[in-house]
Amino acid sequence: MSKRQLLLLSSSNYHGHEFLQFARDWITDFLKKNNVSKILFIPYASTEPDSYTKYTEKVAKPLKEFGFDVEGIHESRDPVEAINNASAIFIGGGNTFHLLKTLYDKRIVEAIRSRVLDNGIPYIGSSAGTNVATVSINTTNDMPIVLPPTFYALQLLDFNINPHYLDPITDDKHRGETRAQRINEFHHINSSPVLGLREGSALLVDGDNATLIGHTKAILFCRNEDPQEFEPDSDLSFLVSSS
Amino acid sequence: MSKRQLLLLSSSNYHGHEFLQFARDWITDFLKKNNVSKILFIPYASTEPDSYTKYTEKVAKPLKEFGFDVEGIHESRDPVEAINNASAIFIGGGNTFHLLKTLYDKRIVEAIRSRVLDNGIPYIGSSAGTNVATVSINTTNDMPIVLPPTFYALQLLDFNINPHYLDPITDDKHRGETRAQRINEFHHINSSPVLGLREGSALLVDGDNATLIGHTKAILFCRNEDPQEFEPDSDLSFLVSSS
Ligand SMILES: [Ca+2]
Ligand SMILES: [Ca+2]
Repeated sequence: MSKRQLLLLSSSNYHGHEFLQFARDWITDFLKKNNVSKILFIPYASTEPDSYTKYTEKVAKPLKEFGFDVEGIHESRDPVEAINNASAIFIGGGNTFHLLKTLYDKRIVEAIRSRVLDNGIPYIGSSAGTNVATVSINTTNDMPIVLPPTFYALQLLDFNINPHYLDPITDDKHRGETRAQRINEFHHINSSPVLGLREGSALLVDGDNATLIGHTKAILFCRNEDPQEFEPDSDLSFLVSSS
Repeated sequence: MSKRQLLLLSSSNYHGHEFLQFARDWITDFLKKNNVSKILFIPYASTEPDSYTKYTEKVAKPLKEFGFDVEGIHESRDPVEAINNASAIFIGGGNTFHLLKTLYDKRIVEAIRSRVLDNGIPYIGSSAGTNVATVSINTTNDMPIVLPPTFYALQLLDFNINPHYLDPITDDKHRGETRAQRINEFHHINSSPVLGLREGSALLVDGDNATLIGHTKAILFCRNEDPQEFEPDSDLSFLVSSS
């Protein structure tokens, strides 16, 4: 039985709410349940030069209000040591390619994986931070502004997630692929299931149990099958139990 | 002075038109000007298994109606030889990552580049086929379903294009990045200009001259500058003259 403790948000923003506020109760319950008061934040999804401090402050503000302390990994001289000393990890959104490349550049992929899977420290991901928690970033929506050494990611789960999942717009005149068509292209090549998390929802993973939480349904795409909708509070353990 | 002859379509579909029909006159004029009656079609952007013949037939139908013969590169035993014998090349849309990876897998990147830049054979690209004609695929909208060995592409031009360019939707409740924000992230890392080609438009390149053609304006993003709009028929030679 896995020790993993994951809270994977589709996004940090949800229409009508301030930054991270829609997830206040989820974050608070998740960290309290795990007896954590301090979080190591990883701002590497931010692409703007010299923005890691600003991004960390942006995240620290609501989290402080929720009762937690936040430190940015860029404040440490040794990122691996920072991971090894962390009692919880939060990876925020931005550009998934930039994030994954920087995780590899800083050589912290294995350290994070080990802390989460072997030591059971809680992991929060949002958007790009949710993408990298899965098998691979093959189902990100982001623009490939940099080339990571591989698309394989932290593999805290052995399926894929598509965050910010978007339903097709009725009568859309645009001829680019819909999100479902893009995921279908993924399934032409790959067999991993893809969970489409709409904004305002999250996947909560406790060992081998998983629950969909939040305000919106999720949609699951399995290769050669019709997509399946799941209501909030659905038990999605069947997705994680084998991983 | 470059010999290159390029017709780069934002998309193969345009609202209210059958497949490729909106570009009928452009394709016809472009190929006639270059005395071409036969086109080698490259269907590698298609991700569906065993779909190359179907895709080639789909493209051949309107092109035949316009007066041109089409052969699929997959019909040749040797793709490099097919390129070297081609009198014109058309690369269609689909998934840009799959397309670029297959161009490298089949070892035809250099052959195409040489035929177009050294021998001046006409190149038509649409969507993904337009992406790969530029410096790199860093500004594709597609999902990264496979990992190519590099994001560098055919480099028939030395700037980037974003096909299917989309203006932000007013009052959008979705919190994913807008297209302009994604291109801004690209410019945090890269300095290459990005031409956003809206559906229904194309870039026509004749040696060192370039013209925007079609039904919609194009938008140019240069690093650290405000984006600039160009009307149809604008002279965009300043973008290509240095390349
Ligand atoms: Ca993003
Ligand atoms: Ca595409």
